[in-house]
Amino acid sequence: MLNLFWADEGGLPAADRGLAYGDGLFETIRMEGRQGVLLSRHINRLTRDAARLGIAVSGRELRSVCAQAAHRLAGGFGDAGWILKLTLTRGAGGRGYRPDPVMVPNLMVAAASIPPVPDPGGVVADFSRIPLTVNPLFAGIKSLNRLEQVMAARDLDDRLFEVIMSDSAGHLIEGTRTNLLVKVRDGWITPAGATLAVSGVMREWVLERLRERGEHVEERPLTTDDILGSDCLGLYLVNSVLGIVPVRTLADHDLPVETGLATIFNPFELLE
Amino acid sequence: MLNLFWADEGGLPAADRGLAYGDGLFETIRMEGRQGVLLSRHINRLTRDAARLGIAVSGRELRSVCAQAAHRLAGGFGDAGWILKLTLTRGAGGRGYRPDPVMVPNLMVAAASIPPVPDPGGVVADFSRIPLTVNPLFAGIKSLNRLEQVMAARDLDDRLFEVIMSDSAGHLIEGTRTNLLVKVRDGWITPAGATLAVSGVMREWVLERLRERGEHVEERPLTTDDILGSDCLGLYLVNSVLGIVPVRTLADHDLPVETGLATIFNPFELLE
Repeated sequence: MLNLFWADEGGLPAADRGLAYGDGLFETIRMEGRQGVLLSRHINRLTRDAARLGIAVSGRELRSVCAQAAHRLAGGFGDAGWILKLTLTRGAGGRGYRPDPVMVPNLMVAAASIPPVPDPGGVVADFSRIPLTVNPLFAGIKSLNRLEQVMAARDLDDRLFEVIMSDSAGHLIEGTRTNLLVKVRDGWITPAGATLAVSGVMREWVLERLRERGEHVEERPLTTDDILGSDCLGLYLVNSVLGIVPVRTLADHDLPVETGLATIFNPFELLE
Repeated sequence: MLNLFWADEGGLPAADRGLAYGDGLFETIRMEGRQGVLLSRHINRLTRDAARLGIAVSGRELRSVCAQAAHRLAGGFGDAGWILKLTLTRGAGGRGYRPDPVMVPNLMVAAASIPPVPDPGGVVADFSRIPLTVNPLFAGIKSLNRLEQVMAARDLDDRLFEVIMSDSAGHLIEGTRTNLLVKVRDGWITPAGATLAVSGVMREWVLERLRERGEHVEERPLTTDDILGSDCLGLYLVNSVLGIVPVRTLADHDLPVETGLATIFNPFELLE
Protein backbone atom coordinates (compact mmCIF):
# COMPACT_ATOMS: atom_id res chain seq x y z
CA MET A 1 0.00 0.00 0.00
CA LEU A 2 1.24 3.47 -0.79
CA ASN A 3 -0.08 7.01 -1.30
CA LEU A 4 0.50 8.18 -4.86
CA PHE A 5 1.21 11.84 -5.66
CA TRP A 6 1.69 13.44 -9.07
CA ALA A 7 4.25 16.24 -9.04
CA ASP A 8 2.26 18.18 -11.63
CA GLU A 9 -0.56 18.45 -9.06
CA GLY A 10 1.58 19.60 -6.11
CA GLY A 11 4.15 18.40 -3.62
CA LEU A 12 4.08 15.94 -0.74
CA PRO A 13 2.29 16.74 2.54
CA ALA A 14 4.10 19.13 4.89
CA ALA A 15 4.81 16.39 7.44
CA ASP A 16 6.40 13.99 4.94
CA ARG A 17 9.56 12.44 6.31
CA GLY A 18 11.32 12.68 2.97
CA LEU A 19 11.59 16.42 3.36
CA ALA A 20 12.12 16.34 7.12
CA TYR A 21 15.00 13.84 7.20
CA GLY A 22 15.68 12.56 3.70
CA ASP A 23 13.86 9.44 4.90
CA GLY A 24 13.33 7.85 1.50
CA LEU A 25 14.81 6.99 -1.88
CA PHE A 26 14.53 7.94 -5.51
CA GLU A 27 14.98 6.57 -9.01
CA THR A 28 15.48 8.43 -12.28
CA ILE A 29 14.46 6.24 -15.19
CA ARG A 30 15.16 7.01 -18.82
CA MET A 31 12.00 6.61 -20.86
CA GLU A 32 11.52 6.29 -24.60
CA GLY A 33 7.85 6.95 -25.14
CA ARG A 34 6.02 4.65 -22.75
CA GLN A 35 8.94 2.25 -22.33
CA GLY A 36 11.60 2.45 -19.66
CA VAL A 37 15.30 1.69 -20.07
CA LEU A 38 16.38 -0.99 -17.59
CA LEU A 39 13.00 -0.53 -15.93
CA SER A 40 12.98 -3.86 -14.10
CA ARG A 41 16.38 -3.14 -12.61
CA HIS A 42 15.23 0.25 -11.36
CA ILE A 43 12.14 -1.30 -9.79
CA ASN A 44 14.15 -4.12 -8.25
CA ARG A 45 16.71 -1.73 -6.79
CA LEU A 46 14.05 0.54 -5.34
CA THR A 47 12.18 -2.38 -3.79
CA ARG A 48 15.35 -3.94 -2.39
CA ASP A 49 16.80 -0.72 -0.97
CA ALA A 50 13.45 0.34 0.47
CA ALA A 51 13.41 -2.96 2.35
CA ARG A 52 16.89 -2.18 3.70
CA LEU A 53 15.44 1.03 5.16
CA GLY A 54 12.31 -0.72 6.42
CA ILE A 55 10.02 0.97 3.88
CA ALA A 56 7.47 -1.54 2.65
CA VAL A 57 6.70 -1.38 -1.06
CA SER A 58 6.24 -4.11 -3.61
CA GLY A 59 7.61 -4.42 -7.11
CA ARG A 60 4.06 -5.01 -8.31
CA GLU A 61 2.89 -1.65 -6.94
CA LEU A 62 5.86 0.13 -8.49
CA ARG A 63 5.36 -1.50 -11.88
CA SER A 64 1.74 -0.41 -11.82
CA VAL A 65 2.73 3.17 -10.99
CA CYS A 66 5.31 3.22 -13.79
CA ALA A 67 2.69 2.04 -16.27
CA GLN A 68 0.27 4.74 -15.11
CA ALA A 69 3.05 7.33 -15.30
CA ALA A 70 4.02 6.31 -18.84
CA HIS A 71 0.40 6.56 -19.93
CA ARG A 72 -0.08 9.96 -18.31
CA LEU A 73 3.24 11.68 -18.97
CA ALA A 74 4.86 10.32 -22.17
CA GLY A 75 2.65 12.40 -24.46
CA GLY A 76 4.13 15.63 -23.14
CA PHE A 77 7.49 14.81 -24.70
CA GLY A 78 6.41 13.92 -28.24
CA ASP A 79 8.99 11.61 -29.82
CA ALA A 80 11.76 12.68 -27.46
CA GLY A 81 13.03 10.62 -24.57
CA TRP A 82 12.22 11.80 -21.08
CA ILE A 83 12.99 11.03 -17.47
CA LEU A 84 10.59 9.43 -15.03
CA LYS A 85 11.47 10.29 -11.46
CA LEU A 86 10.07 8.28 -8.55
CA THR A 87 10.52 9.67 -5.03
CA LEU A 88 9.54 7.15 -2.38
CA THR A 89 9.40 8.23 1.28
CA ARG A 90 8.56 6.47 4.53
CA GLY A 91 5.44 8.65 4.68
CA ALA A 92 4.20 11.27 7.13
CA GLY A 93 4.24 10.77 10.88
CA GLY A 94 6.34 9.43 13.69
CA ARG A 95 7.75 11.30 16.66
CA GLY A 96 10.81 13.21 15.52
CA TYR A 97 13.31 10.86 13.93
CA ARG A 98 11.47 7.82 15.31
CA PRO A 99 9.01 6.43 12.75
CA ASP A 100 5.70 4.88 13.69
CA PRO A 101 5.83 1.08 13.74
CA VAL A 102 3.62 0.87 10.66
CA MET A 103 3.63 3.66 8.08
CA VAL A 104 2.17 4.07 4.61
CA PRO A 105 4.86 5.25 2.17
CA ASN A 106 4.36 8.27 -0.08
CA LEU A 107 5.39 7.99 -3.71
CA MET A 108 5.74 11.11 -5.83
CA VAL A 109 5.96 10.79 -9.61
CA ALA A 110 7.54 13.49 -11.75
CA ALA A 111 8.66 13.86 -15.36
CA ALA A 112 11.65 15.82 -16.64
CA SER A 113 13.39 16.36 -19.94
CA ILE A 114 16.65 14.61 -20.76
CA PRO A 115 19.82 16.65 -20.18
CA PRO A 116 21.99 17.58 -23.19
CA VAL A 117 23.83 14.62 -24.74
CA PRO A 118 27.52 14.73 -23.76
CA ASP A 119 30.19 15.13 -26.44
CA PRO A 120 30.74 11.61 -27.87
CA GLY A 121 34.44 12.47 -28.14
CA GLY A 122 34.61 12.61 -24.35
CA VAL A 123 33.87 15.02 -21.53
CA VAL A 124 35.91 17.08 -19.08
CA ALA A 125 36.03 16.00 -15.43
CA ASP A 126 37.95 16.97 -12.32
CA PHE A 127 38.50 15.76 -8.78
CA SER A 128 35.96 17.06 -6.27
CA ARG A 129 36.87 19.14 -3.23
CA ILE A 130 34.00 17.51 -1.32
CA PRO A 131 34.86 14.27 0.48
CA LEU A 132 32.35 11.45 0.21
CA THR A 133 31.28 9.60 3.35
CA VAL A 134 29.67 6.21 2.96
CA ASN A 135 27.89 4.57 5.86
CA PRO A 136 28.52 0.85 5.33
CA LEU A 137 24.92 0.06 6.34
CA PHE A 138 23.54 2.24 3.55
CA ALA A 139 26.23 1.73 0.91
CA GLY A 140 24.85 1.91 -2.61
CA ILE A 141 21.38 3.10 -1.61
CA LYS A 142 20.03 5.98 -3.71
CA SER A 143 18.53 7.64 -0.65
CA LEU A 144 17.32 11.23 -0.40
CA ASN A 145 20.43 12.13 1.67
CA ARG A 146 22.44 13.69 -1.16
CA LEU A 147 23.85 16.88 0.29
CA GLU A 148 27.43 15.80 -0.48
CA GLN A 149 26.56 15.32 -4.15
CA VAL A 150 24.81 18.70 -4.23
CA MET A 151 27.79 20.49 -2.73
CA ALA A 152 30.15 18.74 -5.15
CA ALA A 153 27.88 19.54 -8.11
CA ARG A 154 28.08 23.26 -7.32
CA ASP A 155 31.51 23.13 -8.98
CA LEU A 156 30.08 21.88 -12.29
CA ASP A 157 29.52 24.22 -15.20
CA ASP A 158 28.94 24.02 -18.94
CA ARG A 159 32.57 23.04 -19.47
CA LEU A 160 33.03 20.70 -16.49
CA PHE A 161 30.75 17.69 -16.89
CA GLU A 162 31.53 15.81 -13.70
CA VAL A 163 33.65 15.80 -10.54
CA ILE A 164 34.95 12.60 -8.97
CA MET A 165 34.56 12.19 -5.25
CA SER A 166 36.93 10.31 -2.92
CA ASP A 167 36.46 8.71 0.48
CA SER A 168 38.47 9.59 3.57
CA ALA A 169 41.15 7.06 2.55
CA GLY A 170 41.67 8.94 -0.72
CA HIS A 171 40.12 6.25 -2.91
CA LEU A 172 38.13 7.43 -5.89
CA ILE A 173 34.54 6.31 -5.41
CA GLU A 174 32.20 7.88 -7.95
CA GLY A 175 31.06 11.05 -9.67
CA THR A 176 28.17 13.14 -8.35
CA ARG A 177 25.75 11.28 -10.64
CA THR A 178 27.90 8.62 -12.31
CA ASN A 179 29.78 5.44 -11.43
CA LEU A 180 33.35 4.89 -12.60
CA LEU A 181 34.78 2.27 -14.93
CA VAL A 182 38.47 2.23 -15.90
CA LYS A 183 39.80 0.31 -18.88
CA VAL A 184 43.24 -1.21 -18.39
CA ARG A 185 45.38 -3.53 -20.48
CA ASP A 186 43.94 -6.76 -19.08
CA GLY A 187 40.36 -5.68 -18.46
CA TRP A 188 38.46 -3.25 -16.30
CA ILE A 189 38.62 -1.79 -12.78
CA THR A 190 35.71 -0.36 -10.80
CA PRO A 191 35.24 0.38 -7.09
CA ALA A 192 33.44 -2.43 -5.28
CA GLY A 193 29.70 -2.07 -4.73
CA ALA A 194 30.01 -2.14 -0.94
CA THR A 195 32.13 1.04 -1.05
CA LEU A 196 29.78 3.10 -3.20
CA ALA A 197 27.46 5.86 -2.06
CA VAL A 198 25.12 5.10 -4.97
CA SER A 199 25.33 1.83 -6.87
CA GLY A 200 23.84 2.53 -10.28
CA VAL A 201 21.69 0.14 -12.26
CA MET A 202 23.66 1.03 -15.40
CA ARG A 203 26.91 0.10 -13.66
CA GLU A 204 25.40 -3.25 -12.75
CA TRP A 205 24.18 -3.80 -16.30
CA VAL A 206 27.51 -2.86 -17.92
CA LEU A 207 29.52 -5.10 -15.57
CA GLU A 208 27.27 -8.04 -16.41
CA ARG A 209 27.68 -7.43 -20.15
CA LEU A 210 31.47 -7.17 -19.85
CA ARG A 211 31.66 -10.40 -17.89
CA GLU A 212 29.38 -12.12 -20.35
CA ARG A 213 31.84 -11.15 -23.07
CA GLY A 214 34.61 -12.82 -21.08
CA GLU A 215 36.33 -9.60 -20.11
CA HIS A 216 38.12 -9.41 -16.77
CA VAL A 217 36.44 -6.98 -14.33
CA GLU A 218 38.16 -6.28 -11.04
CA GLU A 219 36.21 -4.61 -8.23
CA ARG A 220 38.76 -2.99 -5.94
CA PRO A 221 39.76 0.40 -4.47
CA LEU A 222 40.56 2.87 -7.24
CA THR A 223 43.44 5.36 -6.94
CA THR A 224 44.41 8.48 -8.83
CA ASP A 225 47.36 6.54 -10.27
CA ASP A 226 45.01 3.95 -11.74
CA ILE A 227 43.57 6.69 -13.93
CA LEU A 228 46.41 9.13 -14.51
CA GLY A 229 49.09 6.43 -14.81
CA SER A 230 50.17 4.89 -18.11
CA ASP A 231 48.15 1.69 -17.53
CA CYS A 232 44.87 3.51 -18.01
CA LEU A 233 43.36 3.02 -21.44
CA GLY A 234 40.21 4.98 -20.71
CA LEU A 235 37.89 6.29 -18.01
CA TYR A 236 34.14 5.93 -18.42
CA LEU A 237 31.32 7.52 -16.45
CA VAL A 238 28.11 5.50 -16.42
CA ASN A 239 24.59 6.27 -15.37
CA SER A 240 21.13 5.21 -16.41
CA VAL A 241 20.13 8.49 -18.04
CA LEU A 242 23.23 9.20 -20.14
CA GLY A 243 24.58 5.69 -20.60
CA ILE A 244 28.35 5.37 -21.00
CA VAL A 245 30.33 8.60 -21.23
CA PRO A 246 34.09 8.62 -21.97
CA VAL A 247 36.29 11.19 -20.21
CA ARG A 248 38.86 12.94 -22.39
CA THR A 249 40.32 15.28 -19.77
CA LEU A 250 40.60 14.71 -16.02
CA ALA A 251 42.05 17.49 -13.88
CA ASP A 252 43.78 18.93 -16.96
CA HIS A 253 45.35 15.57 -17.86
CA ASP A 254 44.43 14.19 -21.28
CA LEU A 255 43.16 10.63 -21.13
CA PRO A 256 43.04 8.08 -23.94
CA VAL A 257 39.55 7.97 -25.39
CA GLU A 258 38.16 4.81 -26.84
CA THR A 259 34.59 5.02 -27.95
CA GLY A 260 34.41 1.25 -28.31
CA LEU A 261 32.44 0.72 -25.14
CA ALA A 262 29.72 3.15 -26.12
CA THR A 263 29.51 1.59 -29.57
CA ILE A 264 29.31 -1.98 -28.39
CA PHE A 265 26.76 -1.31 -25.69
CA ASN A 266 23.71 0.66 -26.54
CA PRO A 267 21.59 0.27 -23.46
CA PHE A 268 18.88 2.44 -24.93
CA GLU A 269 18.04 -0.40 -27.23
CA LEU A 270 17.16 -2.33 -24.10
CA LEU A 271 13.67 -1.10 -23.52
CA GLU A 272 11.13 -2.98 -21.48
CA MET B 1 14.65 37.01 0.20
CA LEU B 2 12.82 33.76 0.80
CA ASN B 3 9.51 32.05 0.04
CA LEU B 4 7.53 31.46 3.21
CA PHE B 5 5.25 28.41 3.58
CA TRP B 6 3.00 27.53 6.51
CA ALA B 7 2.79 23.78 7.12
CA ASP B 8 -0.87 24.08 8.15
CA GLU B 9 -1.63 25.25 4.60
CA GLY B 10 0.29 22.48 2.77
CA GLY B 11 3.76 21.28 1.93
CA LEU B 12 6.59 22.64 -0.19
CA PRO B 13 6.43 22.62 -4.01
CA ALA B 14 7.07 19.26 -5.68
CA ALA B 15 10.41 20.39 -7.11
CA ASP B 16 11.81 21.59 -3.79
CA ARG B 17 15.40 20.46 -3.31
CA GLY B 18 14.85 19.75 0.38
CA LEU B 19 12.76 16.72 -0.53
CA ALA B 20 14.83 15.77 -3.57
CA TYR B 21 18.26 15.77 -1.91
CA GLY B 22 17.94 16.90 1.71
CA ASP B 23 19.37 20.17 0.38
CA GLY B 24 18.55 22.30 3.41
CA LEU B 25 18.52 22.60 7.19
CA PHE B 26 16.10 22.71 10.09
CA GLU B 27 15.69 24.05 13.60
CA THR B 28 13.35 22.93 16.36
CA ILE B 29 12.82 25.74 18.83
CA ARG B 30 11.14 25.34 22.20
CA MET B 31 8.51 28.04 22.66
CA GLU B 32 6.76 29.25 25.77
CA GLY B 33 3.80 31.23 24.49
CA ARG B 34 5.24 33.68 21.99
CA GLN B 35 8.77 33.51 23.34
CA GLY B 36 11.51 31.19 22.15
CA VAL B 37 14.10 29.45 24.31
CA LEU B 38 17.61 30.30 23.09
CA LEU B 39 15.96 31.84 20.04
CA SER B 40 18.92 34.01 19.02
CA ARG B 41 21.22 31.02 19.12
CA HIS B 42 18.88 29.02 16.90
CA ILE B 43 18.65 31.87 14.42
CA ASN B 44 22.41 32.42 14.46
CA ARG B 45 23.12 28.74 13.91
CA LEU B 46 20.66 28.49 11.04
CA THR B 47 22.06 31.60 9.36
CA ARG B 48 25.66 30.46 9.82
CA ASP B 49 25.12 26.88 8.66
CA ALA B 50 23.00 28.00 5.70
CA ALA B 51 25.94 30.15 4.63
CA ARG B 52 28.21 27.08 4.86
CA LEU B 53 25.90 25.37 2.35
CA GLY B 54 25.64 28.47 0.15
CA ILE B 55 21.99 29.13 1.07
CA ALA B 56 21.46 32.86 1.45
CA VAL B 57 19.24 33.87 4.35
CA SER B 58 19.56 36.69 6.85
CA GLY B 59 19.05 36.65 10.61
CA ARG B 60 16.70 39.60 10.18
CA GLU B 61 14.43 37.60 7.85
CA LEU B 62 14.43 34.62 10.21
CA ARG B 63 13.64 36.77 13.26
CA SER B 64 10.72 38.29 11.39
CA VAL B 65 9.39 34.83 10.48
CA CYS B 66 9.72 33.63 14.08
CA ALA B 67 7.75 36.63 15.29
CA GLN B 68 5.02 35.97 12.71
CA ALA B 69 5.00 32.28 13.66
CA ALA B 70 4.68 33.04 17.37
CA HIS B 71 1.79 35.38 16.67
CA ARG B 72 0.03 32.90 14.43
CA LEU B 73 0.68 29.59 16.18
CA ALA B 74 1.13 30.12 19.95
CA GLY B 75 -2.60 30.39 20.60
CA GLY B 76 -3.16 26.81 19.51
CA PHE B 77 -1.26 25.53 22.54
CA GLY B 78 -2.93 27.52 25.33
CA ASP B 79 -0.56 27.86 28.27
CA ALA B 80 1.52 24.86 27.26
CA GLY B 81 4.93 25.04 25.67
CA TRP B 82 5.24 24.07 22.04
CA ILE B 83 7.82 23.51 19.34
CA LEU B 84 8.44 25.81 16.41
CA LYS B 85 10.03 23.99 13.52
CA LEU B 86 11.75 25.85 10.70
CA THR B 87 12.70 23.91 7.56
CA LEU B 88 14.91 25.95 5.24
CA THR B 89 15.76 24.59 1.79
CA ARG B 90 17.81 25.86 -1.13
CA GLY B 91 14.54 26.23 -3.04
CA ALA B 92 13.19 24.66 -6.21
CA GLY B 93 15.21 24.35 -9.39
CA GLY B 94 18.64 23.50 -10.68
CA ARG B 95 19.62 20.67 -12.99
CA GLY B 96 19.80 17.47 -10.97
CA TYR B 97 22.16 17.87 -8.04
CA ARG B 98 23.57 21.07 -9.53
CA PRO B 99 21.80 24.13 -8.14
CA ASP B 100 21.17 27.26 -10.15
CA PRO B 101 23.73 30.01 -9.47
CA VAL B 102 21.10 32.13 -7.71
CA MET B 103 18.17 30.51 -5.94
CA VAL B 104 15.44 31.76 -3.63
CA PRO B 105 15.26 29.57 -0.50
CA ASN B 106 12.00 28.06 0.71
CA LEU B 107 11.19 28.24 4.42
CA MET B 108 8.45 26.06 5.88
CA VAL B 109 7.11 26.83 9.34
CA ALA B 110 5.40 24.18 11.45
CA ALA B 111 4.25 23.82 15.05
CA ALA B 112 4.26 20.67 17.17
CA SER B 113 3.52 19.71 20.73
CA ILE B 114 6.31 19.06 23.22
CA PRO B 115 7.23 15.41 23.76
CA PRO B 116 6.63 13.84 27.19
CA VAL B 117 8.97 15.14 29.90
CA PRO B 118 11.65 12.51 30.66
CA ASP B 119 11.85 10.97 34.13
CA PRO B 120 13.83 13.50 36.24
CA GLY B 121 15.44 10.52 37.99
CA GLY B 122 17.15 9.61 34.74
CA VAL B 123 16.40 7.81 31.50
CA VAL B 124 17.43 4.53 29.90
CA ALA B 125 19.83 4.61 26.96
CA ASP B 126 21.80 2.10 24.90
CA PHE B 127 24.49 2.02 22.27
CA SER B 128 23.21 2.24 18.70
CA ARG B 129 23.78 -0.44 16.08
CA ILE B 130 23.90 2.28 13.42
CA PRO B 131 27.33 3.83 12.78
CA LEU B 132 27.46 7.60 12.39
CA THR B 133 29.40 9.10 9.49
CA VAL B 134 30.39 12.73 9.72
CA ASN B 135 31.64 14.59 6.67
CA PRO B 136 34.20 17.04 8.08
CA LEU B 137 32.94 19.77 5.74
CA PHE B 138 29.42 19.56 7.17
CA ALA B 139 30.23 18.67 10.79
CA GLY B 140 27.70 20.05 13.22
CA ILE B 141 25.21 21.20 10.59
CA LYS B 142 21.59 20.31 11.31
CA SER B 143 20.95 19.49 7.66
CA LEU B 144 17.99 17.55 6.27
CA ASN B 145 20.27 14.51 5.67
CA ARG B 146 19.27 12.57 8.77
CA LEU B 147 18.73 9.02 7.57
CA GLU B 148 21.29 7.65 10.03
CA GLN B 149 19.43 9.21 12.95
CA VAL B 150 16.13 7.85 11.64
CA MET B 151 17.50 4.34 11.32
CA ALA B 152 19.01 4.53 14.82
CA ALA B 153 15.76 5.93 16.25
CA ARG B 154 13.84 2.90 15.00
CA ASP B 155 15.31 1.07 18.00
CA LEU B 156 13.76 3.51 20.50
CA ASP B 157 10.60 2.65 22.38
CA ASP B 158 8.71 3.83 25.42
CA ARG B 159 11.36 2.31 27.69
CA LEU B 160 14.47 3.22 25.70
CA PHE B 161 14.82 7.02 25.57
CA GLU B 162 17.94 7.34 23.44
CA VAL B 163 20.67 5.42 21.64
CA ILE B 164 24.23 6.69 21.41
CA MET B 165 25.93 6.58 18.03
CA SER B 166 29.65 6.04 17.38
CA ASP B 167 31.90 6.95 14.49
CA SER B 168 33.97 4.45 12.50
CA ALA B 169 36.82 4.77 15.04
CA GLY B 170 34.45 3.64 17.80
CA HIS B 171 34.25 7.01 19.53
CA LEU B 172 30.91 7.94 21.03
CA ILE B 173 29.63 11.00 19.21
CA GLU B 174 26.02 11.80 20.11
CA GLY B 175 22.51 10.48 20.54
CA THR B 176 19.98 10.54 17.74
CA ARG B 177 18.65 13.90 19.00
CA THR B 178 20.94 14.79 21.89
CA ASN B 179 24.54 15.79 22.54
CA LEU B 180 26.58 14.09 25.25
CA LEU B 181 28.12 15.53 28.41
CA VAL B 182 30.00 13.35 30.90
CA LYS B 183 30.73 14.46 34.46
CA VAL B 184 34.08 13.28 35.83
CA ARG B 185 35.98 14.03 39.03
CA ASP B 186 37.79 17.11 37.74
CA GLY B 187 35.13 18.49 35.42
CA TRP B 188 33.36 17.51 32.22
CA ILE B 189 34.08 15.69 28.97
CA THR B 190 32.24 16.15 25.67
CA PRO B 191 33.12 15.25 22.06
CA ALA B 192 34.62 18.19 20.17
CA GLY B 193 32.31 20.24 17.97
CA ALA B 194 34.26 19.42 14.79
CA THR B 195 33.48 15.70 15.27
CA LEU B 196 29.72 16.07 15.73
CA ALA B 197 27.01 15.32 13.20
CA VAL B 198 24.75 17.91 14.85
CA SER B 199 26.14 20.52 17.19
CA GLY B 200 23.25 21.58 19.39
CA VAL B 201 22.55 25.10 20.60
CA MET B 202 21.79 23.72 24.07
CA ARG B 203 25.20 22.02 24.16
CA GLU B 204 26.84 25.32 23.29
CA TRP B 205 24.85 27.15 25.94
CA VAL B 206 25.58 24.58 28.68
CA LEU B 207 29.31 24.53 27.92
CA GLU B 208 29.44 28.31 28.19
CA ARG B 209 27.63 28.28 31.53
CA LEU B 210 29.94 25.58 32.92
CA ARG B 211 33.03 27.50 31.86
CA GLU B 212 31.63 30.71 33.31
CA ARG B 213 31.32 28.89 36.63
CA GLY B 214 35.00 27.98 36.42
CA GLU B 215 34.43 24.30 35.74
CA HIS B 216 36.89 22.41 33.57
CA VAL B 217 35.37 21.25 30.27
CA GLU B 218 37.46 19.04 28.01
CA GLU B 219 36.44 18.55 24.38
CA ARG B 220 37.99 15.29 23.23
CA PRO B 221 37.09 11.87 21.79
CA LEU B 222 34.77 10.00 24.13
CA THR B 223 35.10 6.24 24.70
CA THR B 224 32.84 3.64 26.24
CA ASP B 225 35.28 3.43 29.16
CA ASP B 226 34.81 7.14 29.86
CA ILE B 227 31.18 6.41 30.66
CA LEU B 228 31.13 2.86 31.99
CA GLY B 229 34.40 3.21 33.94
CA SER B 230 34.60 4.24 37.60
CA ASP B 231 35.64 7.82 36.77
CA CYS B 232 32.21 8.66 35.39
CA LEU B 233 30.04 10.61 37.82
CA GLY B 234 27.16 11.04 35.41
CA LEU B 235 26.08 11.09 31.78
CA TYR B 236 23.80 13.85 30.52
CA LEU B 237 21.92 14.12 27.24
CA VAL B 238 21.25 17.69 26.16
CA ASN B 239 19.02 19.22 23.52
CA SER B 240 17.10 22.41 23.08
CA VAL B 241 13.64 20.92 23.48
CA LEU B 242 14.15 18.75 26.57
CA GLY B 243 17.06 20.58 28.18
CA ILE B 244 19.41 18.46 30.29
CA VAL B 245 18.45 14.81 30.80
CA PRO B 246 20.45 12.51 33.13
CA VAL B 247 20.95 8.87 32.12
CA ARG B 248 20.46 6.30 34.86
CA THR B 249 21.03 3.15 32.79
CA LEU B 250 23.24 2.74 29.75
CA ALA B 251 23.32 -0.65 28.02
CA ASP B 252 22.08 -2.30 31.24
CA HIS B 253 24.81 -0.63 33.32
CA ASP B 254 23.60 1.58 36.15
CA LEU B 255 25.17 5.01 36.09
CA PRO B 256 25.48 7.47 38.96
CA VAL B 257 22.74 10.09 38.67
CA GLU B 258 23.25 13.59 39.92
CA THR B 259 20.42 15.94 39.21
CA GLY B 260 22.58 18.92 40.13
CA LEU B 261 23.10 20.04 36.57
CA ALA B 262 19.42 20.12 35.80
CA THR B 263 18.71 22.03 39.00
CA ILE B 264 21.41 24.62 38.54
CA PHE B 265 20.63 25.29 34.91
CA ASN B 266 17.07 25.89 33.91
CA PRO B 267 17.40 27.02 30.34
CA PHE B 268 13.68 27.41 30.03
CA GLU B 269 13.92 30.48 32.17
CA LEU B 270 16.03 31.92 29.38
CA LEU B 271 13.35 33.16 27.06
CA GLU B 272 13.87 35.82 24.50
